[in-house]
Amino acid sequence: MKTDIEISQSVNLTPIKEIAEKIGLKENDLELYGNYKAKIDFPTIQKAAEKEDGHLILVTSINPTPAGEGKSTITIGLGDALNKIGKKTVIALREPSLGPVMGIKGGATGGGYAQVLPMEDINLHFTGDMHAITTANNALSALLDNHIQQGNELAIDPRRIIWKRVVDLNDRALRQVVVGLGGPLQGMPRQDGFDITVASEIMAILCLATNIEDLKTRLSNIVVAYTFEKTPITVGDLQVEGALALILKDAIKPNLVQTIYGTPAFVHGGPFANIAHGCNSVLATKTALKLGDYVVTEAGFGADLGAEKFLDIKVPNLKKSPDVIVIVATIRALKMHGGVKKEQLNEENIEALTHGFSNLKKHIENMQSYGIPVVVAINEFISDTKQEITQLEALCKKQGVIVESASVWEHGADGGTALAKTVASVIENETTNYHSIYPVGASLEEKIETIVTKIYGGAGVSFSQKAINQMKTFEDYGWDRLPVCMAKTQYSLSDDPKALGAPSNFTVTIRELVPKIGAGFIVALTGDVMTMPGLPKQPAALNMDVLEDGTAVGLF
Amino acid sequence: MKTDIEISQSVNLTPIKEIAEKIGLKENDLELYGNYKAKIDFPTIQKAAEKEDGHLILVTSINPTPAGEGKSTITIGLGDALNKIGKKTVIALREPSLGPVMGIKGGATGGGYAQVLPMEDINLHFTGDMHAITTANNALSALLDNHIQQGNELAIDPRRIIWKRVVDLNDRALRQVVVGLGGPLQGMPRQDGFDITVASEIMAILCLATNIEDLKTRLSNIVVAYTFEKTPITVGDLQVEGALALILKDAIKPNLVQTIYGTPAFVHGGPFANIAHGCNSVLATKTALKLGDYVVTEAGFGADLGAEKFLDIKVPNLKKSPDVIVIVATIRALKMHGGVKKEQLNEENIEALTHGFSNLKKHIENMQSYGIPVVVAINEFISDTKQEITQLEALCKKQGVIVESASVWEHGADGGTALAKTVASVIENETTNYHSIYPVGASLEEKIETIVTKIYGGAGVSFSQKAINQMKTFEDYGWDRLPVCMAKTQYSLSDDPKALGAPSNFTVTIRELVPKIGAGFIVALTGDVMTMPGLPKQPAALNMDVLEDGTAVGLF
Repeated sequence: MKTDIEISQSVNLTPIKEIAEKIGLKENDLELYGNYKAKIDFPTIQKAAEKEDGHLILVTSINPTPAGEGKSTITIGLGDALNKIGKKTVIALREPSLGPVMGIKGGATGGGYAQVLPMEDINLHFTGDMHAITTANNALSALLDNHIQQGNELAIDPRRIIWKRVVDLNDRALRQVVVGLGGPLQGMPRQDGFDITVASEIMAILCLATNIEDLKTRLSNIVVAYTFEKTPITVGDLQVEGALALILKDAIKPNLVQTIYGTPAFVHGGPFANIAHGCNSVLATKTALKLGDYVVTEAGFGADLGAEKFLDIKVPNLKKSPDVIVIVATIRALKMHGGVKKEQLNEENIEALTHGFSNLKKHIENMQSYGIPVVVAINEFISDTKQEITQLEALCKKQGVIVESASVWEHGADGGTALAKTVASVIENETTNYHSIYPVGASLEEKIETIVTKIYGGAGVSFSQKAINQMKTFEDYGWDRLPVCMAKTQYSLSDDPKALGAPSNFTVTIRELVPKIGAGFIVALTGDVMTMPGLPKQPAALNMDVLEDGTAVGLF
Repeated sequence: MKTDIEISQSVNLTPIKEIAEKIGLKENDLELYGNYKAKIDFPTIQKAAEKEDGHLILVTSINPTPAGEGKSTITIGLGDALNKIGKKTVIALREPSLGPVMGIKGGATGGGYAQVLPMEDINLHFTGDMHAITTANNALSALLDNHIQQGNELAIDPRRIIWKRVVDLNDRALRQVVVGLGGPLQGMPRQDGFDITVASEIMAILCLATNIEDLKTRLSNIVVAYTFEKTPITVGDLQVEGALALILKDAIKPNLVQTIYGTPAFVHGGPFANIAHGCNSVLATKTALKLGDYVVTEAGFGADLGAEKFLDIKVPNLKKSPDVIVIVATIRALKMHGGVKKEQLNEENIEALTHGFSNLKKHIENMQSYGIPVVVAINEFISDTKQEITQLEALCKKQGVIVESASVWEHGADGGTALAKTVASVIENETTNYHSIYPVGASLEEKIETIVTKIYGGAGVSFSQKAINQMKTFEDYGWDRLPVCMAKTQYSLSDDPKALGAPSNFTVTIRELVPKIGAGFIVALTGDVMTMPGLPKQPAALNMDVLEDGTAVGLF
């Protein structure tokens, strides 16, 4: 069987100019990055803005398990299949972080015959967006430390700097560091830490900003530190929002690539969904909506994280809610939620499947509670038995939700046409009545409690003393009505990664709040959510290579 | 008067496809990065390899002063002027580091009417080479720390790790840091530090490697640490040279851009010349030599640093020595070498000029000692008086060296035709007899002593006890016959930045040796040469901005 990279390298790519023509873009509308990648500039985006929005399909999933769910694969395959049945469709995905690529997860370009290409480029440096974000983030750190070094006119308290440095790598040794050592010429010693780039507030800003002016305003609003008097210090106070925006001037433009089947795909922006808001950029999704009749996009991790943030944080910025939500599940993963170990997933187990369905059921109810129709997509595996499929269909039917199987990994567009027809039919026949899960004007406490009780199914929230103090202070700063971005494990509906299925009677502890005023939300940290992953004992990097002719080896 | 960026933005750029046609490249030979930047792939480089080398012109300068010398400007203007007088010329330059761009120095794309374009792109992210090098460097750090964390099979001594992390920024707070804090799950606590990316050994390797195989071999040879038994640990021991090469697979390909006059310019690789070898990549220079009849290239800082390293480190890898060396000087800078303060440079001062000529004289003698003809180029300033010019011409004549003025900053190609004719005439009429300043087989001690006494004009070398011990150990490791890369202040021929002109009777102290086995040389650290610059009180970043239409503001 061919690997993903072998399949991708066997495809004869179509020049991106021709892909762009499918959605009405001319060569002049593109900034080419080689023959197969392009950025879309603002004049083109503005020109398209007059058109009507297409239909929006949000793909999400159950809580991920080591069995794999294949959300990106279904997103891509569904887009290909919609095109195949005659719907002019554009895909909108996040771009991968190099950290997981070099670590254990691999890339984020789909799999099998449902991939976005060129997968090597997208998974490595792509058009440099991640690097620009890393650079802007760290330039801000350097300018901040330099301000202190050069006399500290703003009276920044070095103990109260909340802006961290970043690298787009998994590097645990950088989680907690001390910088500025070596005497008075080498800066002010202080505690610092590095996050992974995709956890940077600048990534969130890039994904929410609608133009350069909005970008600058948001950058300017970033709170980086507090003074000795505890007054917030912003990027605007340091007067460097212009320099940061300059560094980001190309990164903010959406990237256009293609799938194996030549479907246009915007791959742009990539905040993690467990520590950030987990969706691709508003600019890319908006542009896709203007250029396609149907847009398939995904939100990170399970529907409790990515989809909740898509619906409560991104939609108000996008000014367009999904017309249908597709929840991806696999029989294998549901069996894991039902208690089966990874080694025994190949054995039929109706009881475990039925038990593990509780996880999918909760996500279905959650998504329906936003007033949007739901379709369940079963991502088929060779080990699925006929009885298991029948049982899952029955469970979904009992829940009043449409279910459809797809085999796009193996069969590409052909494997997704049934799902595509179902999704198109739901869009044509059902109406949406989108509303956020919480009122815009609710307090941070109310918003967090709503998410925990309604979405996670928890009994309540326990706030640490630190979080309670912060909520009080945030009132004084006028930050107490912002949306909340939950930082929580992706593996469970609760804050305990080991609690699979649909746990109940649990309390979620809010350890700390992190203001992301530029992004426009407050991050609520639960438990020990890592903002910098580590590498495994055998990192994927050990298998990577490049041949004399430049062919990439070992990416997946 | 227009600023550099205003001049550059007023130019109607020619599509890079058409620029490439001038040197026999077709669109298929290019990897486009937008309409005005391209990379040249290996098949194209290999195809060109069969051609004969063109003539090589190396541009260097006196020791830099705050008055400015304009070496890049002359390099670009000379290339434009050679084309104007009918010589098919290609320029080969280094690419800028973002650190100085955001700090105080500004970009490195020339000035006035002698610029490479698009200057905003080249000075910001360009084609991502710096980011790829940063990423490869830091991926290696992460993999190294992960190896220790995951059991340390190779028995790496955390106190003896010599591989540092990098950022492509001026960030003094990162010079000395402690990483791995926070307990056993966050890595092994140890001292570390960040260099600027252009000081990374990976930058040096990228600039010396001739193909992917050579790149992998060099990466594999990098020494990153020593074991508890003091055995060197290489990238090959960690088995990650393939992953690093994969990260660098596009960065290693030369970048093609254009000057204001449409001269093809390879801008690729950019190691600093005070802490690294200071020349653009061998691959770019070699490709330029195959495609142009004349190639103008430059080496960093003064001839004591950049040109010495070009001649003793790069030439053996390039397998081609310069046909002529152009030494750039300004009357203002020579007056500073003669003791005049910056505020008084506008006043005529024949005596100071005559005194300061000692610096130029020493560089002329040095360059001639390599067996290569020398031309002095006076980069004209409005404050130069006729008498000063006459005096400088007389001093050069006395030295038996041809001198020619140029005003390419103000007049572009027209301002450089006299210099171009002189340079072309020297190439046509004079012969070269290149030889390295030291025998390949000499010891490190002999090589360092030769450079200090013959090139710097010093009385001798004082080695610290540490350096003496290292030389002994390096013999055991078989590193004792490698070329030497001096790390020295650029401001003086000596190791004292305040000793202008041509100091004598000084001793240079070698503090420490740093093995760069992948690059293939040993760095000798004199005094306190910084491998990570700091930002000034008013960084250039404070004046940067980007307009709503994407126009860059404040780059220089």
